[in-house]
Amino acid sequence: MNATANRQVKLAARPVGMPKRSDWEFVTSDVREPGEGEVLVKVLYLSLDPAMRGWMNEGRSYIPPVKIGEVMRAGGAGVVIASNDPTYTIGTHVTGTFGIQEFATVAGKSLTRVDASAAPLPVYLNVLGMPGITAYFGLTDIGRPQSGDTVVVSGAAGAVGMTVGQIAKILGCRVVGIAGGPEKCAFVRDELGFDAAIDYKSEDLGAALRANCPDGIDVYFDNVGGETLDACLARLDRGARVVICGAISQYNNTTPVKGPSNYLSLLVNRASMQGMVVFDYAARYGEAVRAMAAWIAEGKLKSREDIVSGGVDAFPETLLRLFKGENFGKLVLQVADA
Amino acid sequence: MNATANRQVKLAARPVGMPKRSDWEFVTSDVREPGEGEVLVKVLYLSLDPAMRGWMNEGRSYIPPVKIGEVMRAGGAGVVIASNDPTYTIGTHVTGTFGIQEFATVAGKSLTRVDASAAPLPVYLNVLGMPGITAYFGLTDIGRPQSGDTVVVSGAAGAVGMTVGQIAKILGCRVVGIAGGPEKCAFVRDELGFDAAIDYKSEDLGAALRANCPDGIDVYFDNVGGETLDACLARLDRGARVVICGAISQYNNTTPVKGPSNYLSLLVNRASMQGMVVFDYAARYGEAVRAMAAWIAEGKLKSREDIVSGGVDAFPETLLRLFKGENFGKLVLQVADA
Repeated sequence: MNATANRQVKLAARPVGMPKRSDWEFVTSDVREPGEGEVLVKVLYLSLDPAMRGWMNEGRSYIPPVKIGEVMRAGGAGVVIASNDPTYTIGTHVTGTFGIQEFATVAGKSLTRVDASAAPLPVYLNVLGMPGITAYFGLTDIGRPQSGDTVVVSGAAGAVGMTVGQIAKILGCRVVGIAGGPEKCAFVRDELGFDAAIDYKSEDLGAALRANCPDGIDVYFDNVGGETLDACLARLDRGARVVICGAISQYNNTTPVKGPSNYLSLLVNRASMQGMVVFDYAARYGEAVRAMAAWIAEGKLKSREDIVSGGVDAFPETLLRLFKGENFGKLVLQVADA
Repeated sequence: MNATANRQVKLAARPVGMPKRSDWEFVTSDVREPGEGEVLVKVLYLSLDPAMRGWMNEGRSYIPPVKIGEVMRAGGAGVVIASNDPTYTIGTHVTGTFGIQEFATVAGKSLTRVDASAAPLPVYLNVLGMPGITAYFGLTDIGRPQSGDTVVVSGAAGAVGMTVGQIAKILGCRVVGIAGGPEKCAFVRDELGFDAAIDYKSEDLGAALRANCPDGIDVYFDNVGGETLDACLARLDRGARVVICGAISQYNNTTPVKGPSNYLSLLVNRASMQGMVVFDYAARYGEAVRAMAAWIAEGKLKSREDIVSGGVDAFPETLLRLFKGENFGKLVLQVADA
């Protein structure tokens, strides 16, 4: 082991609204040698996710907030470069919660071994990682679509949304994606095979949903909240299921979250709206990954990553791409060459 | 049959905000003789319900709107005074959808026979009628409380709320009612046996919910919407169920409905929010009525009606008591002496 300097990004202040560069502290520390049962991972790719914005806030949530002065939490993919866990040999590719840093010393048992020859490493941060698993269980367990149902998904060109829509197609549904801009819409329709795509930036959402969901919406998978959630609520079919997976439009609010004015559509349509957190399915992650790996092998499920280089110092600005809708597919920060 | 004049209240205009007297037309028509399979009912009591406000609005809902010029829709209890349906003899007590009028000529098969010796007629518009059945299925089928759960119900001194809370107590739950004013709070706590009551008019809802639901809310049965829904969402326990039964605080809005800003608590707590309409349980009404009649007989379930006299001409002002929170128990308009 010859790595000694570890560049890290720590949370310096709790952001108000959009995170600013001054909310972060950039430090170079010594790499910590792995203790008993630990391994040292060289981080190659970091997963940048909308949920990270929530982890920066104080207060009770589904996971404790990142503390001030703590390395920012992040999932990643990397390679084992030193090991004190006999089950991991040097050179093994792994994913885990590494944080925004170049090297992570973590417990071997917290890692997931991945096969870099079966799929590029970034795919393990996307369809074969948390976003894919979130899509899989959110759709199948909470959305519970039946063949022939109309499924609408927002953030359709994002990591979770693209997989939700493709799985819904595999399950025999009519799938309508909502995304920002003609390029993303063309992608989900032409490359991913959604039945229709709505550009929320240029179309009237209500009119577009009426046109594209003539029988109403049976499953709405919400990644964005705000006006989009309201428009979809207004179009629910009887007995519809709304999956609350995220609300990226609201994460940087400095005013209260916009609650869905049309929530009484749940009453009129005997519909339900339910939140989901992927961690609850930890015991079943393998089931999701096996199903999706098979679909990938059969050519039924595609992955797309938006890989940004620049290393951990580029983290603050790269993260903002999510909130500006600039990413196209799963946003990944490349930290080092594989 | 010697009744000839039938005083009726018809919808004259779609109300904006609180219904005004000028939104109604008062007419005296001839009673219509029952045709084949029909009976003539002398209306004794009419059920006044928050849901009526929704029926006055145009637009798609769970039931068609009342048309302009149509007798206002209402459930009621009465006595058969002429019959062209061999299964109904004169003198039989019945409930049905009679409308705001003194006499109703309706299909025999649309009626429900009730036993006026087993319970006073107004009880068949309350615990043993639609509000009770709504409470029963909303709680047991959507709320699904387990023994030991904390159940919170708003509109706790109203027709649905009082029954929800009492059934939750029967099922072994800790029950907290939200009602307006010390008298209603004392009623639900001392007479109905709720564990606690919160006076939303004088208490800080958030603080009171924290104090009275130390382990969070497992089931929130919402009859009111607005700030109360938001405060309860903020206090949900993991896996909580929110039953959307009504939103009386929002029915007379002239501005958009206040959506629940705290809906992301559904995500954090993996909770669900689901609407219910009692009509969906029509095939199972008997099950609910039998269960509740037995609880009444055992002294476990109480009914309370707020009976207002004055006949159908008093309908407009009496209805407003609901929206001003002035009714205490199920609001019933007495139309004639039994």
